Amino acid sequence: MHFSYDHLYHFTHTVFTKMGCPDSQAATAAKALLSADVRGIDSHGVARLTGYVRLWEAKRVNATPDIRIVHETPSTAVVDGDAGLGLVVAPFAMQVAIEKAKTVGTGWVSVRNTNHFGIAGYHALMALQHDMIGMAMTNASALVAPTFSVEKMLGTNPIAVAIPAGQQPPFVADFATTTAANGKLELLQRKNADTPLGWVQDKDGNPSTDANILKKQGALLPLGSDREHGSHKGYALGSIVDIFSAVLSGASYGPWAPPFPAYVPMPENMPGKGLGHFFGAMRVDAFRPADEFKQHMDNWIQRFRSATPAEGHDKVLIPGDPEREMESIRMTEGIPLVDSVVKELREVGAKFAITL
Amino acid sequence: MHFSYDHLYHFTHTVFTKMGCPDSQAATAAKALLSADVRGIDSHGVARLTGYVRLWEAKRVNATPDIRIVHETPSTAVVDGDAGLGLVVAPFAMQVAIEKAKTVGTGWVSVRNTNHFGIAGYHALMALQHDMIGMAMTNASALVAPTFSVEKMLGTNPIAVAIPAGQQPPFVADFATTTAANGKLELLQRKNADTPLGWVQDKDGNPSTDANILKKQGALLPLGSDREHGSHKGYALGSIVDIFSAVLSGASYGPWAPPFPAYVPMPENMPGKGLGHFFGAMRVDAFRPADEFKQHMDNWIQRFRSATPAEGHDKVLIPGDPEREMESIRMTEGIPLVDSVVKELREVGAKFAITL
Repeated sequence: MHFSYDHLYHFTHTVFTKMGCPDSQAATAAKALLSADVRGIDSHGVARLTGYVRLWEAKRVNATPDIRIVHETPSTAVVDGDAGLGLVVAPFAMQVAIEKAKTVGTGWVSVRNTNHFGIAGYHALMALQHDMIGMAMTNASALVAPTFSVEKMLGTNPIAVAIPAGQQPPFVADFATTTAANGKLELLQRKNADTPLGWVQDKDGNPSTDANILKKQGALLPLGSDREHGSHKGYALGSIVDIFSAVLSGASYGPWAPPFPAYVPMPENMPGKGLGHFFGAMRVDAFRPADEFKQHMDNWIQRFRSATPAEGHDKVLIPGDPEREMESIRMTEGIPLVDSVVKELREVGAKFAITL
Repeated sequence: MHFSYDHLYHFTHTVFTKMGCPDSQAATAAKALLSADVRGIDSHGVARLTGYVRLWEAKRVNATPDIRIVHETPSTAVVDGDAGLGLVVAPFAMQVAIEKAKTVGTGWVSVRNTNHFGIAGYHALMALQHDMIGMAMTNASALVAPTFSVEKMLGTNPIAVAIPAGQQPPFVADFATTTAANGKLELLQRKNADTPLGWVQDKDGNPSTDANILKKQGALLPLGSDREHGSHKGYALGSIVDIFSAVLSGASYGPWAPPFPAYVPMPENMPGKGLGHFFGAMRVDAFRPADEFKQHMDNWIQRFRSATPAEGHDKVLIPGDPEREMESIRMTEGIPLVDSVVKELREVGAKFAITL
């Protein structure tokens, strides 16, 4: 079934309002959440709305948070999200980074006591309209086994980097620091299909192709898949995201990161508050004139896009190309939702007496 | 053959002095170069000294550079390396980042008109003594094919991140954004051995295990190896390093990055000057009290090191563990050099009337 963006936006905005979010925060949250659906990252969009509502019901999400800066220097801040929706806390914190960049060239904000923030790319993109490079990352509940480990210690810990260009569309990278994101497993589960080798391991650390292996004490693998193919690099990247997001801010890190499903008990002896995020904004003209930078970015993008493609491929892509193409399709043709998601959304709607 | 650190240091320092480097710059360069040998990254250490000398002979390296800040804000700077050794330019630029971090919390420096800087980790490590997180990256000559490309567009573009701890040794990640670094291929070439699948592709973009494939128009693969295993993520990471290091600073980027071997002609129509680097320093106490941060880093490191290992593995490693263990061995037992490297170094020594 297809739904228009406006229709889903209205529904989502209303759900957040009924949860008790102030109107402007509900709008911010709906926009951030739906940016995933629009860009084709279906696992992180409206399909998760039910999960957010359950976290609120479990009193793990505060619908009226007092989000505030608890420490700062001219180029840095720590923000306490007061257990608010990450979808609301993250844009607040990214805005702080942008304001600092306006003043001293760059801004860097680490966030504690927050929740899942949707897609990292949405927050990084906020920087572009200011001629800034934007960065966003977050830790998440532990689903990933470090190299040589059978224990799950890290989340899929995504990194997003958005870089402005001139005539060309911007460079937008947004990726989990694992070989495959958890959302890819969910798609395979629905189709009853196997994963390629290198995505997951079983509870003893052996290679597996079982898309349901996470439910059997298995784990996702860091980008690189195994030691021989550089999984220690993916493990290092995921660790850096965890440390910047949670150890710098005072959030809960590593295996103690709070779980997204509200039915999973919170970890014991958590060393910090909630999830953590990390944001950066760098004013391009803190390095060289913005026009000059953008001309060179145009040149960079055109040169890479015109690189000789391998047989069977039309062209070499620039990070952000697939999501932008998806956005132009979905804003005109609507957003497809699978039946199970529609059913869940209708159940959520029923709770609040709204229809999808 | 084994050589003591002091012996190799004296030799290297003297070679740089004979090239015309001022004494303090020769000392800096020797220390940076040898840090690779000490940490076990043999491909980037004294084995490259001959290459640096050849670049100087080809007038691509300026032994008496006027390294200077050409643009700055409170938290950023662009440094022009005046075609100096990256081994000298990089510590200068990292020091600028550190000074800025002292004042405004963080410092970010993009560098143009520079050359190869040895291992990225060495420069990132400079931040630790100031209770700062250090970051270093660099672009390099194009050896890597983006996902779906047969053309080589990026260098192995490494990223290093050093994070201080308290009682525990620091977290130090330092890795090429490819599945395997070029140095790994060189080791296999010497042994006449094949690479694992996923490290390289041939000139048509087909999988290959030929360790000599770069000489046959083949390419290294981005971290992730192929699209199904996330090579678009490694490609994005390498691109980010290229853009931060070279497009921000005005260095030459992508396929136009200058080659390391002096016999390879410079690319035509270079869009900037020399290679580019990017450095960052973040004062830990710009986010939370340093002692508190370090206690949590100790906890992080201890928890990860005690994660249940997979069968056949003693323990889960923390990024930086292998290099630190190597350092303690090599500082006592000496640094092993293969015969071909010893021969080359003796030839270099002969030029300057010094014996190894």
